[in-house]
Amino acid sequence: MPIKLSELNVCPAPQFVAICGPFFERSPWIAERVASRRPFASREELHRSLCATVDAASADEQLTLIRSHPDLVGRATNNGELTAESAREQAAAGFGTLTADEVRRFQEFNAEYQGKFGFPFIICARENKKDAILAAFPARIASTRECELRTALNEIAKIARLRLFDAVLEG
Amino acid sequence: MPIKLSELNVCPAPQFVAICGPFFERSPWIAERVASRRPFASREELHRSLCATVDAASADEQLTLIRSHPDLVGRATNNGELTAESAREQAAAGFGTLTADEVRRFQEFNAEYQGKFGFPFIICARENKKDAILAAFPARIASTRECELRTALNEIAKIARLRLFDAVLEG
Repeated sequence: MPIKLSELNVCPAPQFVAICGPFFERSPWIAERVASRRPFASREELHRSLCATVDAASADEQLTLIRSHPDLVGRATNNGELTAESAREQAAAGFGTLTADEVRRFQEFNAEYQGKFGFPFIICARENKKDAILAAFPARIASTRECELRTALNEIAKIARLRLFDAVLEG
Repeated sequence: MPIKLSELNVCPAPQFVAICGPFFERSPWIAERVASRRPFASREELHRSLCATVDAASADEQLTLIRSHPDLVGRATNNGELTAESAREQAAAGFGTLTADEVRRFQEFNAEYQGKFGFPFIICARENKKDAILAAFPARIASTRECELRTALNEIAKIARLRLFDAVLEG
């Protein structure tokens, strides 16, 4: 269920972190650092504060955040590897009904990307269907590590924004 | 973001468990036992299957499920004790802005209830605002352990139904 921003602005910090933590994959430290900056005048302002916290984090923290994401079409099992958010986003992108050939192409691209850059390929699945994601892989793999780190953080910001807008209502 | 039932019906079992697991507090075993019973013709049918799984579970499993719930207005901190679902439900019920006196009354009722029955007081917060919940405590405390076990499971079924209807769309 969504919560109103006005309620999120006044609830105890642990509740704020429980609600806003999952906007970022397995990285509650982002919401923890933002809790004391409340109140926020809008969801956009909350999102900007969360993203500014990521930008201000150390390179190590940013890399850990990126590495906290599951591979698309990976071997995620139900022992806690896949969050409910990621599972829903992947299913909505059409990943529940991949052909064996598509699964193989995803796994090959994932391995190539991970091998070159040392972190998983991250893309906002809700803004891209599986065909668009497969089509995007070659250019991303051809890019540089520095550019891909920036792209990954940009995609993470988009994912967080959509999760935030699902979970929090203006007002 | 919500997922369509038609997508949930065909996605891999780990994704199904990642999505449906959180309908029940820290108890993914319920969704795990239901995954192989897909497809479901409606959200109501999925909900019935989940609840039937709880009903068919052992008394120990049922008690563990009940004890997996946080105290309302408890000392839940951000070290993983409070799920995002519970945090949002409690905030929506007005628990973000309790007076010191209300916090004290909740904690006293919680302690009395837990002391008598050995499990936490469970109520569907989204169907009750804080005043209604406080008003419900005395009658629940006056009840018998057998009745309260049944009531707790009924409230858990209501909580799960609302979470399911948020997360899954018909069609």
